[in-house]
Parts: sequence; C-alpha cells; structure tokens
Amino acid sequence: MSSSLVQISKPGLSPALLGERFADIRNVSLRLTAHLSAEDQMLQSMPDASPTKWHLAHTTWFFETFILEPNVPGYQSFDSRFKYLLNSYYKQLGAHPNRSSRGLMSRPSLEEVHEYRAHVDAAVLANIDEFDSKTLELLEIGLNHEQQHQELITTDIKHALWFAPLRPDVLASSTEGKAAPPMTWIDIEGGIHSIGHAGSEFAFDNEGPRHEVLLQPFKIASRAVTNGEYMEFMSDNGYRRPELWLSDGWDQLCAQGWVAPFYWDKDEDNTWWHFADDRMKPVDPSEPVCHISYYEADAYARWAGARLPTEAEWEVAAVRSPSRGTMLEDQVFHPQAATGEGFQQAFGDVWEWTASPYTAYPGFKPAAGAVGEYNGKFMCNQFVLRGGSCVTPASHIRGTYRNFFPPYVRWQFSGIRLAK
Amino acid sequence: MSSSLVQISKPGLSPALLGERFADIRNVSLRLTAHLSAEDQMLQSMPDASPTKWHLAHTTWFFETFILEPNVPGYQSFDSRFKYLLNSYYKQLGAHPNRSSRGLMSRPSLEEVHEYRAHVDAAVLANIDEFDSKTLELLEIGLNHEQQHQELITTDIKHALWFAPLRPDVLASSTEGKAAPPMTWIDIEGGIHSIGHAGSEFAFDNEGPRHEVLLQPFKIASRAVTNGEYMEFMSDNGYRRPELWLSDGWDQLCAQGWVAPFYWDKDEDNTWWHFADDRMKPVDPSEPVCHISYYEADAYARWAGARLPTEAEWEVAAVRSPSRGTMLEDQVFHPQAATGEGFQQAFGDVWEWTASPYTAYPGFKPAAGAVGEYNGKFMCNQFVLRGGSCVTPASHIRGTYRNFFPPYVRWQFSGIRLAK
Amino acid sequence: MSSSLVQISKPGLSPALLGERFADIRNVSLRLTAHLSAEDQMLQSMPDASPTKWHLAHTTWFFETFILEPNVPGYQSFDSRFKYLLNSYYKQLGAHPNRSSRGLMSRPSLEEVHEYRAHVDAAVLANIDEFDSKTLELLEIGLNHEQQHQELITTDIKHALWFAPLRPDVLASSTEGKAAPPMTWIDIEGGIHSIGHAGSEFAFDNEGPRHEVLLQPFKIASRAVTNGEYMEFMSDNGYRRPELWLSDGWDQLCAQGWVAPFYWDKDEDNTWWHFADDRMKPVDPSEPVCHISYYEADAYARWAGARLPTEAEWEVAAVRSPSRGTMLEDQVFHPQAATGEGFQQAFGDVWEWTASPYTAYPGFKPAAGAVGEYNGKFMCNQFVLRGGSCVTPASHIRGTYRNFFPPYVRWQFSGIRLAK
Amino acid sequence: MSSSLVQISKPGLSPALLGERFADIRNVSLRLTAHLSAEDQMLQSMPDASPTKWHLAHTTWFFETFILEPNVPGYQSFDSRFKYLLNSYYKQLGAHPNRSSRGLMSRPSLEEVHEYRAHVDAAVLANIDEFDSKTLELLEIGLNHEQQHQELITTDIKHALWFAPLRPDVLASSTEGKAAPPMTWIDIEGGIHSIGHAGSEFAFDNEGPRHEVLLQPFKIASRAVTNGEYMEFMSDNGYRRPELWLSDGWDQLCAQGWVAPFYWDKDEDNTWWHFADDRMKPVDPSEPVCHISYYEADAYARWAGARLPTEAEWEVAAVRSPSRGTMLEDQVFHPQAATGEGFQQAFGDVWEWTASPYTAYPGFKPAAGAVGEYNGKFMCNQFVLRGGSCVTPASHIRGTYRNFFPPYVRWQFSGIRLAK
Repeated sequence: MSSSLVQISKPGLSPALLGERFADIRNVSLRLTAHLSAEDQMLQSMPDASPTKWHLAHTTWFFETFILEPNVPGYQSFDSRFKYLLNSYYKQLGAHPNRSSRGLMSRPSLEEVHEYRAHVDAAVLANIDEFDSKTLELLEIGLNHEQQHQELITTDIKHALWFAPLRPDVLASSTEGKAAPPMTWIDIEGGIHSIGHAGSEFAFDNEGPRHEVLLQPFKIASRAVTNGEYMEFMSDNGYRRPELWLSDGWDQLCAQGWVAPFYWDKDEDNTWWHFADDRMKPVDPSEPVCHISYYEADAYARWAGARLPTEAEWEVAAVRSPSRGTMLEDQVFHPQAATGEGFQQAFGDVWEWTASPYTAYPGFKPAAGAVGEYNGKFMCNQFVLRGGSCVTPASHIRGTYRNFFPPYVRWQFSGIRLAK
Repeated sequence: MSSSLVQISKPGLSPALLGERFADIRNVSLRLTAHLSAEDQMLQSMPDASPTKWHLAHTTWFFETFILEPNVPGYQSFDSRFKYLLNSYYKQLGAHPNRSSRGLMSRPSLEEVHEYRAHVDAAVLANIDEFDSKTLELLEIGLNHEQQHQELITTDIKHALWFAPLRPDVLASSTEGKAAPPMTWIDIEGGIHSIGHAGSEFAFDNEGPRHEVLLQPFKIASRAVTNGEYMEFMSDNGYRRPELWLSDGWDQLCAQGWVAPFYWDKDEDNTWWHFADDRMKPVDPSEPVCHISYYEADAYARWAGARLPTEAEWEVAAVRSPSRGTMLEDQVFHPQAATGEGFQQAFGDVWEWTASPYTAYPGFKPAAGAVGEYNGKFMCNQFVLRGGSCVTPASHIRGTYRNFFPPYVRWQFSGIRLAK
Repeated sequence: MSSSLVQISKPGLSPALLGERFADIRNVSLRLTAHLSAEDQMLQSMPDASPTKWHLAHTTWFFETFILEPNVPGYQSFDSRFKYLLNSYYKQLGAHPNRSSRGLMSRPSLEEVHEYRAHVDAAVLANIDEFDSKTLELLEIGLNHEQQHQELITTDIKHALWFAPLRPDVLASSTEGKAAPPMTWIDIEGGIHSIGHAGSEFAFDNEGPRHEVLLQPFKIASRAVTNGEYMEFMSDNGYRRPELWLSDGWDQLCAQGWVAPFYWDKDEDNTWWHFADDRMKPVDPSEPVCHISYYEADAYARWAGARLPTEAEWEVAAVRSPSRGTMLEDQVFHPQAATGEGFQQAFGDVWEWTASPYTAYPGFKPAAGAVGEYNGKFMCNQFVLRGGSCVTPASHIRGTYRNFFPPYVRWQFSGIRLAK
Repeated sequence: MSSSLVQISKPGLSPALLGERFADIRNVSLRLTAHLSAEDQMLQSMPDASPTKWHLAHTTWFFETFILEPNVPGYQSFDSRFKYLLNSYYKQLGAHPNRSSRGLMSRPSLEEVHEYRAHVDAAVLANIDEFDSKTLELLEIGLNHEQQHQELITTDIKHALWFAPLRPDVLASSTEGKAAPPMTWIDIEGGIHSIGHAGSEFAFDNEGPRHEVLLQPFKIASRAVTNGEYMEFMSDNGYRRPELWLSDGWDQLCAQGWVAPFYWDKDEDNTWWHFADDRMKPVDPSEPVCHISYYEADAYARWAGARLPTEAEWEVAAVRSPSRGTMLEDQVFHPQAATGEGFQQAFGDVWEWTASPYTAYPGFKPAAGAVGEYNGKFMCNQFVLRGGSCVTPASHIRGTYRNFFPPYVRWQFSGIRLAK
C-alpha cells in the first residue's frame, strides 16, 4: 500500500483549499498518536511494521524531500542527516537504513520529530501560494501518502502491543448478539465493463488507465463474511484439511500454527476473544471476520463452495450507478454516495481480498524521477484488496483504490467477500 | 509444472494406440537416463530438484496408484512401502516423505526401480484392453505427467552436476558467430480473442475452459531475446541498477549475488562461458538467452523500453492461423504446424516468461478425487511461462500449454520475448 | 557474568552498613542512566543485550522477589504482573518473556520503573533492620547483581547506539601519542598454588571453593596487549591467515566479515577510529586493545608466539603478595591494594580472556532454591575472563572474580594478556 | 576426533611390519563397507556426517598427499583433481569443497574410488622400504587416521539410514533380560598423578606431553550407566525439568524435541526400541545407554546426585596398575591388558563423556606443516570423551586417547560414567 505515490494528470488545485487539507491531515496524524507515549512510539515488532515515530517522521520527510527542497529557495533543512535516516526505500535518493532497524531510532526523540513536523509544516504553508501546479500535485500525493501511513500507524501499533511482553488482559464482557444482515447474491451481467480511475479527482497512478474489461456473468455477495460464518469453517476443521488450501497457504499454516484469525485467543471455556482497542473482547459473530490472510480467505471460499471475486468484478459490482448498472464516465466514488445496489459493507469495514494478483493495468506507465521510481516495483507476489477498513481515513477511500499485500499478511484489517 | 494433472473431458481413446504411446514414452525415460550411473541418479542438489531415480520411480507410482490398484483386480503391488515412499504431495493419499529427503533414497536401488518399472509396465499393457474410457484418460494423463518429469530429469541433473564438487572444466572452443534472425515487431489487433484449450486432443485442465479475452492492440517480438542482446543489458550495468528491478527481484539479486544468467561463468579474459551438455561452452550471442528468472526477464524488458507479454497476448500471437489471424475453433497446436505469421522460436527453444501470474481461467473447476485434488493448489506466487524448451518432449508441446514457476526460479530453460 | 548469584557462606553483615551500600549502589544505577532518554532506554540491538530500562527494572525485581516478598509480611507488590515480566531466566519462578522481546517493553514506562525502584528501595530500607543474616546475604548478592548489570547497562547501550540508524559521526581529533609502558615477562614458579575465594568478604559461589592447583613454571606479560601491537597483527594479515585461528573462530571471522576489533572503523586515509563515549575517536596505539573476541585473542597470541594464560596462572600472577609470592590466606583483593609485582593493568582496564573454559572448581556445590538454581547452568561453551574493565564498578572488582562469556562475544570490554 | 593427526616423536618403525599393518587396515575399510551399495555409499544425511565413499577416498588422499607425492619421485597421481576434491579442511593445502556438498559426489564412482585405493596402496607398498623414519611416522599417522574414519563410516551410515525415507521397520523381538553387573564406587586417592602419553608406542600429539595433575580424592563408577538406569531418569521427568540441565542443553532439548536417547522410538505399548544393525530392536535395560549428548550425560549425572569425571580422573582410574595404583612410566594401554581394578566397560562399549572441555595439555606444541597445521584448531567448544566404543577398531583404543565432540552431538556411540 505504501508504494504507489504517483498520481494521474490533474487539473488545477487551489493552494488555499490544499493548504487547509494539508493542515487538517497533518493534524490527524498527531491526534491519532496522542495517546501513545514516546516509548510506545518506538516499538517495532516485525520488519514489516514500523514505529509510530518513524511514520510521523517519514511522512514529514516526504514533504521536505519532494516539495520544500526542490521548490523553496533557501529552505533550511531541519537536520541534514534526516535525508538518509528517513528514506524508506527510494533508491534514487541514495542509501537508506535497513527496514528492520527502525526500532533502534531512539534519536531523534519524539519531541524532536514533533518539532521537525512543525518546521516543515510552517515552511509548506508559508510557501504554498508560490507552488506551481506540478508541485501542488506532489503535495496532494504527499497528503495521500500520509493517509496511508495513518492506517499503518494503527495496524503497526496494534501488532506491537499484541507482542509486547505484557499482553493485554482478557476482560470479561458479554457479546451483544447483534444479527448480521442476511447475505444475498447480487447478479452482475457479463460483457464489457470499464474499470479504473478517470476524471479530475485524485488517484494513485496504479488506479489507471481506466480501461475496458470483459467479464462473464457472475454473482457477488451482498456483504462481507461474518465471524459467525467463519467460525463454522473453523468448526468444520477448516484449518486441518489440506485439500481446502493453496499449497503455499498450507505450508504457512503449518509453519505458523494458524488455527484462527490473527489476534484471536480462546479461553478455558472455549470462548473466542480478540484484541481490539487495547484490550481483549469477545468475538462478535455478526461482525465481518478480520485479520485473515489471503490464504485463509481463499480456503474459506473454497470450503463455502464459492470463490473470491477478481478486482474487476469487485469494482464493477461496488461502483455501479444504481440506475444504470455501470459507472458513469469520470465518476469518482465518495463513501457517502450510493454504492452498487445491495452491495453493503464495501467501504469502512474491512479490506476485501480479491483473487487478483497485483499487476499493471494495460497502458500503465511509470512516472519519471524518484517519486515515481517504484510505481511497478511491488507488482509481484502480492494480491489486491479492495474497499477500505474501519481504520482507513474516510477521505482516502474510493472505488478504484487498489490496496495490495502479500498473501500471508494478517496484521492488516482484511476480510472476505465471496463471489461465484 | 508438475501440478496440473487433470485433463478436460475427452472422447474415446483407442487402447491399442495408447498402449503404443505408453511403451514409447516409458522407453524415452529410460533412454534419457541411460548415460547416468546409479550414483548420478541419486543426486539432489536442492529441495526443488529431485534425483533422477526418484523421477523414474515416482512416474511409475502414478500408474500403479491411479491405474492399476483401482482397476486391476488382484494386482500385486511391487512393494507396499512405495505407496508412501513415492508419493510426491497428494495429501488425500496419506503421508509422504519430505521433499528434501529424496536424495537419501539409496534404497530401492536403481536396479530395483528398473524392475519396478518393468513390473508396472507389464501390468498396464496386459490389462489395457479392459480399461474403461475414464481409466484410459487417466492413463493419458499419466503419460503427460511422465513427459513433464522427463523435462525435470534434465533440468534437475543439470543443476546437480553444476553443484557437484567436481565442477565441469572450461573447455576451449571458438564461438561460431552465427547471426540471430533480425527481431521485428508483430502487430496484433485489439478486440475480443479466444484463448485456452478446446477440442478432442489432450490438454491439462488448467488450459481450459476456452474463453474470450479482451485485448488492446499490442506489438510482440518476432523471436526470443538473444544472449548478445542480454549481454548489452549486462554491460549497461543492468545488474547494478535497482530502478530496473521489481523490489523482490532486487532483494533476490542482492541476496544471491546475481551478475549474469544461471550457469554462466567468466574466465580471466572476461569471456562468458555456460554449462551445457556436461561441459562449459562459450556463450553464443545468437542463441536465445536462457536460465533466467522472471525478475531478470522483467528487468531486461524495462531496460529495453518494452515489457513482457501477458499469456493471452502470447497465445493469441503464437497460434493465429496465418490467413485468419485468430485460432480456429478446436484447433490444437502441433509443433510441426505453422505458428502465427512471423512468430519464431515459440516452441522448442526456451520457455518464455509472461507477465501473467498463474491463476484460474474463468469457470475453471477442480476435478474430484486425489488426481485432481490440487488443480488450483499452485495458483499463487507463480508466473506463467509459454512455449516449450529444447528439453521439452516435442509431443508434449502445444499452444495452450501453461507452464508455471515462481519468479526466482532459474534452473529451468527459461528466456524472454518482448512485447509493447 | 549474569548467572552466578549465590555467594559463599558469610559472617554477620551490619544492617546499617549494608543499608548505606544499598542506597549508594542503587543510586549509581540512576546516575549512570541519567543522560539517557526514555527512548534510549528502550533500545535492544541484539538478543544478548538488554534495554537500559529493563536492567533498571530487573535488578529491582531481584530485591522484590528474593528479599521483600519472602521476608516482609504484608508487603504490597508494586505491580503483580512484574513477577512474570521482569524474570530473566529463573525457571523455578515460572515462565518468563523471551529475551529478544525486551525491546518491546514500552510499558511500564521509564517513569513507572523509577517509581518501582523507589517503592522497592523504601521497603528494603524500612525493613532492613528486621532481616536475618540469610536475608542480608541475599541482599548483598542483590547488590553485586546490580553492579553486574551496571556494567551491562554500559556495554549494551554502547552496542545499541552503534547500531542505531544514525551512526556516530567521525570527529576529527589528533591522537596523543602516549607511550605504553614497556612489556616485560614476569616469571612465576611452578608447583602447588592456591586459587579461589576464601574468607569473609563477599564473593560469588563460583569463585570457590579455594583449592590447590599444580602449575608448571610460566611467564606472564606485565601488561595488556596494546592497540599498536594489535595493529601489527592486523598489518601482518592476521585476519586473513586461517592457520592462526581456531576452526570455529575462522568460521566466525568469515561469516561476520571481521577485519578489526569491534567498534573500529577506517576512514579514507586508512586511519582507524573507534567508538567511545558517544563519538568516534582515533585509535590510541598505547591503550589496551579492547572489544575483541576470544577467537581474536587466541589468534593474536598464536601470531605473537605466545599463548593465553589459564585462569589459575592469571590469578596466581595477579594476586601474589609482593613479598611472599603467593596470596595470603583469606586475603581479598582490593583494587587499591598492590597486585603481583610488576603485574600491571590487571584491574580496571579490560577484561582479559583466559585459555580456561568456564567450569566448576573441585567441590563446587550448587545452592538450594531459585537463587542458586543456575549456578552451574552456564558452565558450557564459555571462557573465563579475569580482571575487570574500565566500566566495571571498582568495588565489584576482586582477584578471584570469574567473568565468563562465549568465545564469539565482542561487545564486552575484553582484551588480551599473553603468557608462555 | 578427526583433527589430531600429528603424533609425538617416535623411535624406529619397521617398514615390513608397518607394511603388513597398512595392508590389514586398508583391507578393513573395504570389508567394513562391502555390504553397502554404491548408492548407500553416496548418502550424506547432515553436514557433520560424510558419505562412506568419501571416507574411503579421503583416507586414500591422505596417503597420496602426505606420503607419496612428497616422497616418491615420479609418482603419478591417480587424478589430479582429487587434490582439491578430497581435501577435508587442510587450508595450507589450498581450497576444499564445502563439507555439506560431499553428498553430491557421484563422480568419481565407487568403482573408481576402489581403483584409486588400489593405485595408492600399490604405490605405498612398492616404496615403503625407501621411506625414511619421518615418512614412516606419517604413514603410521595415516593408518590411525584411517581407523578414525572406520569408526565414522559406521556412525555416519547409521545416521543416514535412520533418516532415509524408508525408515527401518520395527521388528518384534523379546528383550533378553540380561542383568547388568552391579555398579560400585571405586575410591581413588588424591594427590599428584601423571596423565598423558609417553613412550614408544603411537599416540596422537594431543595425548601429550605426559604431565602431572593434582587431584582431590574422588569416587568413580565401576561401569557405565545402563539403559535401565537411564529410563528411570526419563520416568522421573528428566527431560522435562529445566533445573537438571545446562542452559545451552535445555535450549537444545526444546529446539530438537529430545525425549529419549537418539535412535530410540516408542511403540503403541510404550515399549522403547532402538535402531541397531539395520533394524529396530527392543532396548535392553542391561546395556550401557548410548547415543546421548554431553547435555544429557550432564543432566543425568545431576539427577543421580553425582557428576561426570574429569578426563584426568577418568584416565587415572582407568589405567592404574592394579598393584601400584598409578600408571607405570611409559606404560601404554592395550585393551587386552588389565585396566584399573574394578574399572569395567572402559574400552569397547561406549565413549564416555567427561566433564573436561577439550584443551591443550601444558606444553603442547603444534607440529610444523599442513599435517600438523590444525592440532589445536578444534580446542574450543568441544568436550573430551574417553575409552572407546563397540565400533572403534580395537587396535585404535588406548588409555590416553582423547576423543572430542561438541556437547550437542548424539550420533556417536557415547554414554555415561559417573563420578563424585
């Protein structure tokens, strides 16, 4: 998710409006992390996850590196060593620290990182009126980049606190017994559809070009698979039947000892609990199942006599105009707008694994320079997830968004929607 | 490649003709291995590769397990322990040895494996007239399975001899200076095309169902990339420029120290040699580059300002009827037949990496039972290769064939064809 | 070094004096760490090293677990979860976190750990007059345990800051060109000598029983090997000649790429710098070489035509009475007292590797209970170091002290003294 | 065991007698391996173990390299590539293959290795009368080296057949219920004793110099610990009580899942079987326990309220003259001769772990040249075993012999004798 930073050509952006959004989004990162101590913000529990403080610093580095240094004459960098220190993986910008060493970044302190943020924010806002449209576009990318990291801040600290020596206690609490809405199958006609981003709103470059796809008629579930449904799979020995699993998935299951979704734990009474909001809560059967890998989503679908949708199927089903059945040209999804008829829980619950390996759309062209150096760099060994989760910033969600992770990943808020 | 064993519905097969093919193909395996000693046939140089003797035994086990035991009343198995010993990965058939322990199979001896082959061959041929059509179909699968292993016998022993403590000596020899045919770009129209297998000839189930795909207009190279062209990439620091590589590919390159195709070695005069036919030979600039990973193919294409074709593009370009531009319904490729106009070196040179991750065709349905247990089991983390190499049995090659390997694999005879 | 917690039988200790020492030593830990931020005190750069905060907390846990809980009726533990959280490896006390997860201990915060220390300190001092002699002995062990951890605090944070993404800068500075004292060989007579602790002063149990050893006549160097001498070994290809190395040492050298002592770095002018006091300083040829492994010490000695002393030789040479040539019965070393005649730099410079694997003295008996559970637990795969380093608390040093580490360890302040 | 190739200065050896011994010992290797097929002789089941064929070839290489090439003018080497191929680890002789690749040595074939042996044997015998005394000494070393490898041939092929995919079947058989001799404690006086080799018979250099040691009075068991006694330790949860184990041993136990000696397996009736002579046999409670690591020996001793003897204690107890209580000057042990009074099962049953890490005797001096290059090379991280096992050639056993292996090793025929 953190790799697609180059956007599609954009019409003019208003510096004033963008400045407001800049201030807002930068503030969100601080509010999101305010409850975490400087020590909490140091935690790195696996190489794939980063410390909170690093996220706060790296997103700032992005603005300093791509906006201020090339465009603000006389800009004084906060600390010249940060150019190296906070580079994630942009090889055109020179060497960078090994990812797994981010947890050793006691210096700069959190306080210094906050000062660094203030320093950069002030410089951006003081100069925003002078930026040309190309720079404003980069600024908008930087804001979307920061929103991606806001989601990662949440997923990464959850992982770290789970693995901390003091594991969260199990807290007695009753399940509420909410009923999930009934699941129905939505029929979608086959034929030529269009997917991908077009129009004037922001999107990452990997969401385009918008292009036609040929689909066969298919059915897609009206909502995500629930914990209750997933527990039936578990009860039916889903984690003990190799014939349900991809070969790589079964190897992973055996090596890791998977018996349930990540963050689940069973007490002596065989009640399942999961880790949420800093404590253990009973698993609610009506909620979408979450924190599962692609392998588990795929095995569940096979067990259920269904399959996962492709990303084209997912997008066509999710962003149909209720009246017309296909998306209008230039239409961009807004979470508050209507999705495809009957298509529920698409946005804001869980990311939904699709059957589509993450590859380039036809005609995809990498952008020039370091910011676009790696557009296609991750198009290998990953699967596309669609939708958006409960920890995705709402304004960051859209119907054409292509999130992607390797199939073994479970620390993201990832779930299942069936197709057939 | 070794995983797709279930074929599509087939009309009647003649027991007499099939018996002849059975005898022929079984003999090929013996001829192919006749120059290797019992000790050579023990070698296992990595978990992904298997000893020659194991290939000879496992292909025999396939016929005993799927043909003789269920269909020949009173059949006496050669050795009841082989049921476990020679199972590769069919979990519905019970436990199997760890793949990496195949090199420890000094017993049964090669002589016993030859006796085992004779025992099973005699039983098949003695009973072939009694087999029903379903069993004959399984027999045909078994023969195709054996042909797959014939190719693996060659790739695996090459790997083992390369890593043997006595590395092959460099033998002085002059390069012949053959000229490769000039490379041209073939234009293919966009629109709806059909790909995949249909008709009465044998194919593996993953080659179907035949279905329509929507393609944009594209260009595809008339032949494979040559060693000479690839050496230009090497000279242009192709192995030292991260911006040309997928992120996973670059990591692999660094971890493995890749600087050239596999099996290449440079002498003091900076001349490149490669390992072929048991000895070192000078690299011939006119031959297709071979033994490269998907990562290298992808990086080369990016360097060349092109890309790899998708498997649909490849198939459409390769099996067009010269006159009509699309493949005739039910048409099956025969290597001796004409391929798409101008499309050279498609079959019998090198397997060609495509840009397509290996996934199911729309409507693909796994077959029932152990033989089809794992049809989709490997549809993850692999890329499709098309065509066929110099070590693929000629009668095993066809235009719809989908070979697949993980992107880091280099011990197969794999090369590059460009598209754009 | 952190394993030998049980001391030899002791005469009465004065609660008042012990209380003073308790207050002093506990304060030293705080002073020693005062310059480190809460974030610095989180750092764990390898499983063998621990965060500063963990050291501060674990040493406190020792007093709470072994002194307060069994001996102070009604003692209220600061946090009941610490019993598990802060146990290092005492298996009789139940489960404990994995050593490598100590860096994930953001909670308790450093502030809470300081409160924990104050809570425990107050309880100890409030009750010290009531403790019986056995408890006072445990208290004295706890103080020595804390001093061991004071040294580890220094070695571990040095390691962490070295591996932090912001490596210390090289600071220009001139070497002072001090001359090391000339090295002479001290002759020691063979025959029966006594080594090991006896008497009324504190010592760890592994320092006894005092016993006789039979030594052949030997020579021992008057001082430690200097950086200058060690650089001659380096210049003479010491790190490239396998015949100088133990087999395991050579493997380690190759795997780790050793070319110099740990914490050394060479600039473009081929000047060697080393990391000290938070910055890079030029290597001073007159100082004892430091931060080398047993393997390097052993290889250097072989290169120099000498050998390392056994621990018995070392002790006999170091603690001879100047006049008598052997140690007086019950004599205990005090750093300020005279050591063996001519025997310089024994205490307070570098720990000196001996040729002696760490094993039990004849008649060594493990103590009962958890505190003595593991007396001999580490007597395997380690070598004894003698003396004491510049970061060992002075009052913790004595002539019979047996420090021990595995032969590959380099992050301790360890050097070389030759014998022959 | 394979490292100490340099012997102590020797008086004249008769070429005629030595030639006879040469022919005998070389023949033993062939007889010992005659029942193994060429394929069996390829097996390498772990890097620490080598294929039978490699042992046959490497021992031959020793004679070719150290005897023939330097001493026989005009000697024609059998194959010049063997100089590299068959070097185990003599770095002064140049590069050598990685140990773990020995299992990939299909070429030379076993037949060629037999021819190589015949070629070298003929050359040695044809020239033996011309060799000077130094060369004859090297020849005697070569014979002892070959005997070491004879034992390794047995231990290594046992390991390989145990890990072969076709594990040996359990064969029904009744235990014989033999009674072990009662165990008694032998009292040995303290004081100055002498240990180590002296005299005119052959010994490896690490067995000397003979020197005095000062021992405290001790008791040593009259025989080895039996399977029956060891099973009491197992029944008393010996493998589940960390307090009985060295820290490294407990880690190893947990990582490897040890619950019994190596090569043991339990059937459904909870009867223990062990692998011996190519098949599974019931564990005989009266036999010495075998195939245990140092860690297990040490834990057993602690559980039994005893300890392991040091190697000095072992030697003093084992080779006392019955009448005098100490070994006579220049006395060399012969297995047929009387051992220390009451001291049973010292030679020819199991190697007995001692508490002594493998280090140099005082005054030990490495020999010059490649053959002695590595005398002390393995004096680190290993423990001494004394005695000799049922698979040690009888003429290779002597009272001063110092075998050594790392403490985790279990594939040798190693057992326990207690002391206190």
